[in-house]
Amino acid sequence: MQKSPSASSLGPGGLDLAQAFFKPILNTDPPSSTKRHTKISVIGVGNVGMAIAQTILTQDLADELALVDAKSDKLRGEMLDLQHAAAFLPRTKINASVDYSVTAGSDLCIVTAGARQNPGESRLNLLQRNVALFSNIIPPLAKYSPDSILLIVSNPVDVLTYVSWKLSGFPSNRVIGSGTNLDSSRFRFLIADHLDVNAQDVQAFIVGEHGDSSVALWSSISIGGVPVLSFLKNQQIAYEKQTLENIHKAVVESAYEVISLKGYTSWAIGYSVANLARSLLRDQRKIHPVSVLAKGFYGIDGGEVFLSLPAQLGRGGVLGVTNIHLTDEEVQRLRKSAETILEVQSQLGL
Amino acid sequence: MQKSPSASSLGPGGLDLAQAFFKPILNTDPPSSTKRHTKISVIGVGNVGMAIAQTILTQDLADELALVDAKSDKLRGEMLDLQHAAAFLPRTKINASVDYSVTAGSDLCIVTAGARQNPGESRLNLLQRNVALFSNIIPPLAKYSPDSILLIVSNPVDVLTYVSWKLSGFPSNRVIGSGTNLDSSRFRFLIADHLDVNAQDVQAFIVGEHGDSSVALWSSISIGGVPVLSFLKNQQIAYEKQTLENIHKAVVESAYEVISLKGYTSWAIGYSVANLARSLLRDQRKIHPVSVLAKGFYGIDGGEVFLSLPAQLGRGGVLGVTNIHLTDEEVQRLRKSAETILEVQSQLGL
Amino acid sequence: MQKSPSASSLGPGGLDLAQAFFKPILNTDPPSSTKRHTKISVIGVGNVGMAIAQTILTQDLADELALVDAKSDKLRGEMLDLQHAAAFLPRTKINASVDYSVTAGSDLCIVTAGARQNPGESRLNLLQRNVALFSNIIPPLAKYSPDSILLIVSNPVDVLTYVSWKLSGFPSNRVIGSGTNLDSSRFRFLIADHLDVNAQDVQAFIVGEHGDSSVALWSSISIGGVPVLSFLKNQQIAYEKQTLENIHKAVVESAYEVISLKGYTSWAIGYSVANLARSLLRDQRKIHPVSVLAKGFYGIDGGEVFLSLPAQLGRGGVLGVTNIHLTDEEVQRLRKSAETILEVQSQLGL
Amino acid sequence: MQKSPSASSLGPGGLDLAQAFFKPILNTDPPSSTKRHTKISVIGVGNVGMAIAQTILTQDLADELALVDAKSDKLRGEMLDLQHAAAFLPRTKINASVDYSVTAGSDLCIVTAGARQNPGESRLNLLQRNVALFSNIIPPLAKYSPDSILLIVSNPVDVLTYVSWKLSGFPSNRVIGSGTNLDSSRFRFLIADHLDVNAQDVQAFIVGEHGDSSVALWSSISIGGVPVLSFLKNQQIAYEKQTLENIHKAVVESAYEVISLKGYTSWAIGYSVANLARSLLRDQRKIHPVSVLAKGFYGIDGGEVFLSLPAQLGRGGVLGVTNIHLTDEEVQRLRKSAETILEVQSQLGL
Repeated sequence: MQKSPSASSLGPGGLDLAQAFFKPILNTDPPSSTKRHTKISVIGVGNVGMAIAQTILTQDLADELALVDAKSDKLRGEMLDLQHAAAFLPRTKINASVDYSVTAGSDLCIVTAGARQNPGESRLNLLQRNVALFSNIIPPLAKYSPDSILLIVSNPVDVLTYVSWKLSGFPSNRVIGSGTNLDSSRFRFLIADHLDVNAQDVQAFIVGEHGDSSVALWSSISIGGVPVLSFLKNQQIAYEKQTLENIHKAVVESAYEVISLKGYTSWAIGYSVANLARSLLRDQRKIHPVSVLAKGFYGIDGGEVFLSLPAQLGRGGVLGVTNIHLTDEEVQRLRKSAETILEVQSQLGL
Repeated sequence: MQKSPSASSLGPGGLDLAQAFFKPILNTDPPSSTKRHTKISVIGVGNVGMAIAQTILTQDLADELALVDAKSDKLRGEMLDLQHAAAFLPRTKINASVDYSVTAGSDLCIVTAGARQNPGESRLNLLQRNVALFSNIIPPLAKYSPDSILLIVSNPVDVLTYVSWKLSGFPSNRVIGSGTNLDSSRFRFLIADHLDVNAQDVQAFIVGEHGDSSVALWSSISIGGVPVLSFLKNQQIAYEKQTLENIHKAVVESAYEVISLKGYTSWAIGYSVANLARSLLRDQRKIHPVSVLAKGFYGIDGGEVFLSLPAQLGRGGVLGVTNIHLTDEEVQRLRKSAETILEVQSQLGL
Repeated sequence: MQKSPSASSLGPGGLDLAQAFFKPILNTDPPSSTKRHTKISVIGVGNVGMAIAQTILTQDLADELALVDAKSDKLRGEMLDLQHAAAFLPRTKINASVDYSVTAGSDLCIVTAGARQNPGESRLNLLQRNVALFSNIIPPLAKYSPDSILLIVSNPVDVLTYVSWKLSGFPSNRVIGSGTNLDSSRFRFLIADHLDVNAQDVQAFIVGEHGDSSVALWSSISIGGVPVLSFLKNQQIAYEKQTLENIHKAVVESAYEVISLKGYTSWAIGYSVANLARSLLRDQRKIHPVSVLAKGFYGIDGGEVFLSLPAQLGRGGVLGVTNIHLTDEEVQRLRKSAETILEVQSQLGL
Repeated sequence: MQKSPSASSLGPGGLDLAQAFFKPILNTDPPSSTKRHTKISVIGVGNVGMAIAQTILTQDLADELALVDAKSDKLRGEMLDLQHAAAFLPRTKINASVDYSVTAGSDLCIVTAGARQNPGESRLNLLQRNVALFSNIIPPLAKYSPDSILLIVSNPVDVLTYVSWKLSGFPSNRVIGSGTNLDSSRFRFLIADHLDVNAQDVQAFIVGEHGDSSVALWSSISIGGVPVLSFLKNQQIAYEKQTLENIHKAVVESAYEVISLKGYTSWAIGYSVANLARSLLRDQRKIHPVSVLAKGFYGIDGGEVFLSLPAQLGRGGVLGVTNIHLTDEEVQRLRKSAETILEVQSQLGL
């Protein structure tokens, strides 16, 4: 599927023209496939996978983009739709296949594939089906791109990132879950919208489990570098704790709200993951709240568990975790999340 | 809907914080809404409209983006999904409403709304329903943004661009159809893919009616500035005319192919229209094949008809049409397209 | 000088070709110069002015760029050198003239012109010569672009921003000095380099007078949203106050260091000012430490004085000043700076 | 010089803070320097080298930038001036040294260093001094980055590209001279300015020797894909051949004009070389007129000579040369240029 049949069926004239149009110069290197370029693979071409792939393309983050999905028609349609925009974009080689060999040599593999919950299905049953799905996805990715970074987007993201780590055999710095990176962005948007400032001037982290039990780090909120909590204290503003909690509640609800309104979420997760891809592949050494192996942090010692913490990301994957101060309450909530996830993991029989 | 209820329901503390956080300096201008910024409105938030809106946002082409659709839930979901990415993008104000007042003061209005063909419905009947739809869209757009440029994407694009021109009362330079801009891009991609060159190095125009009767201008094809037809002649390459025709045929079929594979087209038209938006609003004076009032060109004198011709686009809309040489056959095909469209228009009773 | 003589001397054939190549469509708008586009003028084409102009061009911040300088040869050389890159950049109209009429209709005027200190000349004498120079620059800028924002880069920037405000008669929100925006960036770089993090993840403000008496706001330093001072306190790290002071000292010295090494500074101030231009013209509402009318802030009540404070910038210029908490020592140092500047201003006889 | 002394002299507290701020996660990769990133080295930090380095930085083309020059003060000043802008740019690691080891592992080495003509010095003598200079530059570059691409900008560019090829021992596809890429851009600007179109819509090649004997390929000129010569013929416009020659003459003179006006050229060559760097490193497969080993093309058989021809550039360097049709006169002029250069080369005794 790498070469458009439409193009390759144009007749023998095609090849002649290409050969006639360019002539090689003398004394050149032998042809080689070892030249460095940047390749990203996206597994799953649903709404989330395609929003990610298209944003990566628009932001020119890769020299090659490979798409994989089990549905060959949908896959080919999405590939052609992106390829048709070639004249409007910097050149990116776009391939697609149901076969994982198309991902060979990737620098970054982004996994968005996942089973959907059937009516009446338990969460555990759904998760077990997803684990089965991942056992067909992760090993071939790891085989074809043994040096790549794995970025897991499918939900429940924390458990599936752990599963991917186990299935890949990769070191932990190269297995990352998108985690609360998007939750934190929604948090920053709501605060910015509230104050009519630029969301990029708002720092605010949501950490822990991606979803309802996520933990908002109130002391991390600053605007243009001004810590909000101490600002309020200094200004003697009676800012109800309830108001702050309402913002966090709105963040947790906003994913459900978008899904109830348009049926799924796509754009924001697309931008969020493209943003992570950029920090990783361009060695930006920026700090993002993403799901990482959390064992050993904040007294999380019960087992190997992935949770979102503010991590520095670069070409080597996770470079380190920010050693921030949490309140006792925040630490307790983190640990409780860890225990819940560990219990789920224990039922998977990995 | 301009202010997120989630945000505005955070309690009275919100306003206090904003007021406390920033203090005005002395001797300032009175608040004013007359400052120049760039505003784009997108009408219709289906797959095409959203691919356009999201690409405009990623490429940072506007300071304000307004979305309009009749389905308020879907509309609000799409607005929130874009807003949630604020932390990853330059700041763009994003509003959405079922009411056209949200588009007030737009520099560019992009119309993607359109009725779908019912089973067994004639094309004329479909068109009449679309004309009825446009009579509810174009007048309010023209009223709220009397100086804007209208860019029509809905199909059949040539007739609906004519309809929009009539309904708006705008001068013809400010009413444009996306026309064969995307067809030409697909043409360029297929040629580039064939020769393994960058599609941006390929010049090639498809003009005329958007769709099956479009006209490929063979003499306009050049690669890196080298005219392909005379190259082939000079190289005495026996390049079958059939092969060239196959490329054009593949272009015409590619839209149908994508639709049959994924159900609709979105990404390529999104990039295509964002590309036009950029040329228009940033006064790029680039040449694009788009649907313009073609009366007076190439002997098209039978009436007011919009067809795609290579037009120079800038801040003033259509700045002129390239006065290229066409073969007699090409001219005949253009005129025939014009007559077909005029006949359809005569049945609309406008 | 707006039309390259080289081009206009190509003979009468030129015009014929342009007229032949494009034909207007029917029913168009009358030609009009009222269409919105973004225009930036840069006054002074020395190393600083050109680094600013070139960065603005590369970052595609304007649709039109006008350069003014008293030295017509140098000016024309710089204009041509930028114009010759047209094929590599989005289209920007570039003009240059010794006459201020070339700046007409600017959205932003950036002033980099300034007299150089003669051997043995007192600072006051130099300043008086610069005030005389500005009395020939600011009034024509204000006349030709009455709605523009003035951004002053020339040194001593705080006094000359005040002078520009007085000479222009503009409201204070539209007269801004580049102030300590660059100092703060150097501060952020040194901290980021220290910790091997991305400088964009470091928030840190230097405020007050641009130069030796600038004030570092230690409590504003955060990394990825984590306040550094409280981090150190919580971690019980004995971080010597002297070390922090050394970083600030290194910032103050770094401008002198660059000047002693290469003779002048250019690139960093170029990026710094382009960054301000972007926040202003694209209405980014970001917070920057820039020189604004500081009367009424932090007990600065002695007179009309411009000092750098963290200000929110947007299409309306200065939208507000961040009402941050300063320590008593910081407030004292700010007030002392204000008094020093006011004393200098009192000697100018404006 | 890689670590700013200002930063490293901040005291032992610095290291403590970095170690305290980030903690590693468990089970990570061993630290490794083999991760792919993109590194560009620029040799020579004069006006041309710095315009190139700064444009590469602004356009975010590299993850690491190394500067080399013999003048250590100037070199360090330029490095610091770029580094101070870190907060305004995506993160790029910037190093500088008088020692070529700083260039180790470069993907692209850009050479701008060159001796200046002394009063009364013959061109041959100047060239011999430059050959001596290159014998100290090219071998260490080749040693430290054996897989890199060499891009030569110093003049006379064609001879020095040949010299670099010989000194490096690299295959010919990895040794390229900037050649007439800038001349062609000036050509495109003058034509675009003439017709008030976007220079990116103008295709036009100047090939052959960079300088006075360059050859304008008239038949390659097209605007928006419309070949100008046949357009003129079809329109029966009496366009004087003299007018076309005047445009080429203006191109040749424009470098001299800029030098006479501002003393040197910098910005346009900076953009031109950054544009080549992008095509090479991001595998854009675009066609550029650059200096390549021309033996075997257009009957140039007298020896190994580098001349500008329209070449397709990608990650492998020169991928091929466009096999365009030249008129007999154009071929004759190319061959004559080749002979002149070969004669000069024969005097160098390489």
